Amino acid sequence: MATGHTDPQRRERILAATLDHIADEGVTGVSHRKIAARAGVPLGSMTYHFRGIDELLHEAFTGFAAHVAAVFERHLDGAGSAEQACEAVTDLIHALSDGPQRDLILTHELYTLAARRPEYRELTRMWMSRSRQLLERYFDAETARQLDALIEGLALHRALDTTPHGRRLTREAIKRITTTA
Amino acid sequence: MATGHTDPQRRERILAATLDHIADEGVTGVSHRKIAARAGVPLGSMTYHFRGIDELLHEAFTGFAAHVAAVFERHLDGAGSAEQACEAVTDLIHALSDGPQRDLILTHELYTLAARRPEYRELTRMWMSRSRQLLERYFDAETARQLDALIEGLALHRALDTTPHGRRLTREAIKRITTTA
Repeated sequence: MATGHTDPQRRERILAATLDHIADEGVTGVSHRKIAARAGVPLGSMTYHFRGIDELLHEAFTGFAAHVAAVFERHLDGAGSAEQACEAVTDLIHALSDGPQRDLILTHELYTLAARRPEYRELTRMWMSRSRQLLERYFDAETARQLDALIEGLALHRALDTTPHGRRLTREAIKRITTTA
Repeated sequence: MATGHTDPQRRERILAATLDHIADEGVTGVSHRKIAARAGVPLGSMTYHFRGIDELLHEAFTGFAAHVAAVFERHLDGAGSAEQACEAVTDLIHALSDGPQRDLILTHELYTLAARRPEYRELTRMWMSRSRQLLERYFDAETARQLDALIEGLALHRALDTTPHGRRLTREAIKRITTTA
């Protein structure tokens, strides 16, 4: 390749370094200089690939949202009925809350960013809409919305508790929220 | 008073300045110097009142947790039955998610901190245990735990959505999660 600028991996390396940096130190300190050093790319390639910090954060979190959506999909893909989907969602909640701390940290960094700056809520809206669509394969739209919120709350509470609740309680909560009158 | 060190308001001013700083800029950049400047106190009084940044953060978030617990209590205090409690919880979820962005930001700053550093999970555990205890006035312990997670998820999703769901959906979700077989 004539110049490093056209290295297709460079953009991906920058995005991966951005998420690594956010996981370690938070969104607050992100700068072109720090990310370039972490990704091992020249400072100039930051402005070549991204118009600014906001585009960098937006792209990095879009990639992270796709990763979490893939976790959702992997869990639900095998479910052939609403009953099996309830079991898959139970697994999902426990995988999310027992899983890598990195995902938990990045999720909350994104939520904090969206709480502070409403322009990032398009990202959180898309994030929620993807998981709801997956749930709508098995449940009506209103139930999917309620269940999606329950998944969030149960996974969060399990992850941040010192004595997290067990599978039985998760399963019971899912059963209740998916039972329509 | 002989010295500023014994000014009982000074400690409170430092804690308030800490939460203001976190709401504006996040936990990451908190330093004795920045908080002292914001609180208008001499740098020396930071180390007089707090052994370090962790004690400062711990005390500041303990105060914030008490504030959120008071919001919970204010909503539930008037409820004389489980049915009234369901209505009060609906109000609570909408108050939390329509309410001051500051509370939303501080909540997520705390969660991010606890996600990153397990030693802060004693704080999030206490936070959850207070709200559950309040809910246990009206519901059995298992239901209270499920409802507490649902409150978290629904309030979070409403706050971070660009088209937040309405009261009817909130009420229906609460009804389902509190309905035991």
